Amino acid sequence: MTPVENTAVVDLLGVLAYAELTAFDRLAEDARLAPTLDGRASLARMAAAEIAHHGRLTDRLVELGADPSAAMAPFVSALDAFHEGTRPSTWLEGLVKAYVGDGLATDFYREIASFLPEPDKALVLEVLADTGHAEFAVREVRAAIKADRKVPGRLSLWGRRLVGEAITQTQAVIAEHDRLAELIITGTGDLRGVSRLIERITDAHTKRMKALGLNP
Amino acid sequence: MTPVENTAVVDLLGVLAYAELTAFDRLAEDARLAPTLDGRASLARMAAAEIAHHGRLTDRLVELGADPSAAMAPFVSALDAFHEGTRPSTWLEGLVKAYVGDGLATDFYREIASFLPEPDKALVLEVLADTGHAEFAVREVRAAIKADRKVPGRLSLWGRRLVGEAITQTQAVIAEHDRLAELIITGTGDLRGVSRLIERITDAHTKRMKALGLNP
Repeated sequence: MTPVENTAVVDLLGVLAYAELTAFDRLAEDARLAPTLDGRASLARMAAAEIAHHGRLTDRLVELGADPSAAMAPFVSALDAFHEGTRPSTWLEGLVKAYVGDGLATDFYREIASFLPEPDKALVLEVLADTGHAEFAVREVRAAIKADRKVPGRLSLWGRRLVGEAITQTQAVIAEHDRLAELIITGTGDLRGVSRLIERITDAHTKRMKALGLNP
Repeated sequence: MTPVENTAVVDLLGVLAYAELTAFDRLAEDARLAPTLDGRASLARMAAAEIAHHGRLTDRLVELGADPSAAMAPFVSALDAFHEGTRPSTWLEGLVKAYVGDGLATDFYREIASFLPEPDKALVLEVLADTGHAEFAVREVRAAIKADRKVPGRLSLWGRRLVGEAITQTQAVIAEHDRLAELIITGTGDLRGVSRLIERITDAHTKRMKALGLNP
């Protein structure tokens, strides 16, 4: 592995490790919006799964000789800005954010992981595995749509806002991290490869919105 | 086991299950006050351990034929009132609350658990095992005291406020739950037994305050 590849791996593990830490945070916060003790415990358990993933990533960073806090630091402000800009005000907004927002992020990280050497590719794919949130969110949101026909319009708008913020912050991160940009362009082959990558992510997003019963 | 004992077991598992859910919540909230990413991840991991305990208790409630949400419900307002009344405003207050407050609660639940039949006694003692918080809190608070001599006075006051709130809420819970009161009095033998129980809990509290370098 050349030094350039190694630092790109550290970048990717670093951004993911901080993403998992904020995922914990956000799920824990959203748990408090749950209408039932059962829903609250479900979200808390998902948060616990995220922090376990965080630990796997920081262990690997240490193994690679990197300091986990230093590896996460460059991504703190962009990820915090995303979460500040998309703070759910209701239980349903939180669920849509978790399903649609995490789905987008997961697809993006998965695409990049495919360019990584082992064992990091396997590790990233493993920590990106769904923690049961998807099925839970789909069930709750669909039930809410059945109960109140004003729900889908509001949540569809919210879904579009999430995508907008996600694109803004992703662009900011990549613009500041040449090694990540290089990894993506080299990995996809060329700019046409990049646009196909974006197409795949967009298609998957559309499917998720429809699965919730929302307009993409 | 007589029916009375069984319902007291459900009461105790119910209050503990809700206590673990609020412990998750509070640790997750305090994690955000952490001055470092490392401290934040440490608290998040402890929160994850609490929600795992919560799951063990609700599983056992289901096994006993009880509905976990119904078993927790009678204790929601007292535990929420305790946490509302003792919301930490700094990272150090959060740590003292976790160490001193959880220590008090743990000692109290442990005393009651000793009156339970197996397997519930073993389960309760297991979920009450320290999740690494104690050592972490002692280390951080002692370091802060070394760095700033105004810290111990403020935190000692805070520790006394925690005890006051804990006593108020415990009395409220027991007053409303005859079966728990009966379990304690039968278990300790008589009122002298109860006062020895309180003495043991108070002594342990004093030791914990001193371990932090604070005045009990």
